Amino acid sequence: MLVATRNPLNIGAAARAMSNFGFQHLCVVNPYQVAFREARSAVGASALLAGAEEFKTVAEAVADCTLVVGTTAVGRRELRHPLRRLEDGARAIRKRLASSSVALLFGSEKVGLSNEDLSQCDWLMRIPTREVHRSVNLGQAVAISLYELARSTKAARAPQKRLPALAGKPATAGDLERITVMLLDALRASGSLKTRSEVITGEKLRRLLRRHKLSAADAEFWLGMLRQIVWKLQSTRDSTS
Amino acid sequence: MLVATRNPLNIGAAARAMSNFGFQHLCVVNPYQVAFREARSAVGASALLAGAEEFKTVAEAVADCTLVVGTTAVGRRELRHPLRRLEDGARAIRKRLASSSVALLFGSEKVGLSNEDLSQCDWLMRIPTREVHRSVNLGQAVAISLYELARSTKAARAPQKRLPALAGKPATAGDLERITVMLLDALRASGSLKTRSEVITGEKLRRLLRRHKLSAADAEFWLGMLRQIVWKLQSTRDSTS
Repeated sequence: MLVATRNPLNIGAAARAMSNFGFQHLCVVNPYQVAFREARSAVGASALLAGAEEFKTVAEAVADCTLVVGTTAVGRRELRHPLRRLEDGARAIRKRLASSSVALLFGSEKVGLSNEDLSQCDWLMRIPTREVHRSVNLGQAVAISLYELARSTKAARAPQKRLPALAGKPATAGDLERITVMLLDALRASGSLKTRSEVITGEKLRRLLRRHKLSAADAEFWLGMLRQIVWKLQSTRDSTS
Repeated sequence: MLVATRNPLNIGAAARAMSNFGFQHLCVVNPYQVAFREARSAVGASALLAGAEEFKTVAEAVADCTLVVGTTAVGRRELRHPLRRLEDGARAIRKRLASSSVALLFGSEKVGLSNEDLSQCDWLMRIPTREVHRSVNLGQAVAISLYELARSTKAARAPQKRLPALAGKPATAGDLERITVMLLDALRASGSLKTRSEVITGEKLRRLLRRHKLSAADAEFWLGMLRQIVWKLQSTRDSTS
């Protein structure tokens, strides 16, 4: 998933690497429109690129995924997410891919992923480089990441039979987003959310919920409780105002 | 070592990947002159690129090396060389690098390495891709290869620095109980808790919260939110009753 990409060559390069390593579903979020058009019209643009889906926000793009992984060069920004090296991260992603959809996010060439994008992520992954030169070219970063993902697949092709996890099917990013929105509604209705802190609280909630590793059933349970609480809060507010 | 490269962006991309993964000696053999000049004058061209050595032939360029490895997508050409997958090849290269110089050759974008170039090689290496799409972009191929070379080094170096657990100190059972009680209060105040289901819901909540593996900080965050929500629910109930 490419977020806010500026350079058409990088979109093309990402598509090519996906084709090389057998990944099919390219999503672009809020790309620089000229870049997306140019990449699509470029000679040799693959069917993969032609079928790329476009989204306005990361939240929409990852809604169906049960695992959302951001990539980062880990610059000056203070990280609030667990960070894994590519080798380790790839292993975890591969496991999840066996049963459900995973999104791998790459930010823009200049600034990477925004804090809001990051708040959609379960954890972050970095390509191990020299400390003094961490910033990897976008097209190359995609290629290396997918190589490692495909590599692991081959290495461990022996179909590991796994016990059904006790927690059940994991919640999707869409479920977590619904819970987040509902909690924000509840906080707003109870008068404890200032407008200017809403974004920060939202990001904090998204990180929190991801740490909790909700199953689909857990998510349903939370949504059921919150729906009732929000309904009550809003109805009393409406009747008293 | 880049042989007969046509695209300045690829020369730049190769230099950048070398810098990322800690390789220093870039040689270009018989490059398209315009490409080499452009790559060198590009903004952000690294010191590495500025110091690139230029040769007329592969033979001259590899003269000091004790091992010469060619890269190939293995197309229609009949191979007369041993061929290794990148993972295996990288291991062998790394061993040799410990004691002497190794050349890794990348051919031109269109046709790869010529038979004459290949004749300088001890063996060939390929990046494992899907059968139907073997041809990897040059800049990406360099990046993947160097990543794998550096990876082996690092992996062997082992002592993985472990992340300080981001989640911090775990929540106590007391914290979890306070959250449970508060959630029950919220549900009761919103009218969605029948007396006879209270015990069952409480048990369900306790199990749920334990699965979530809250840290002490998470627990505090939840308590803060819930306190506010419960306070609002109870105060409106009291004022309307």
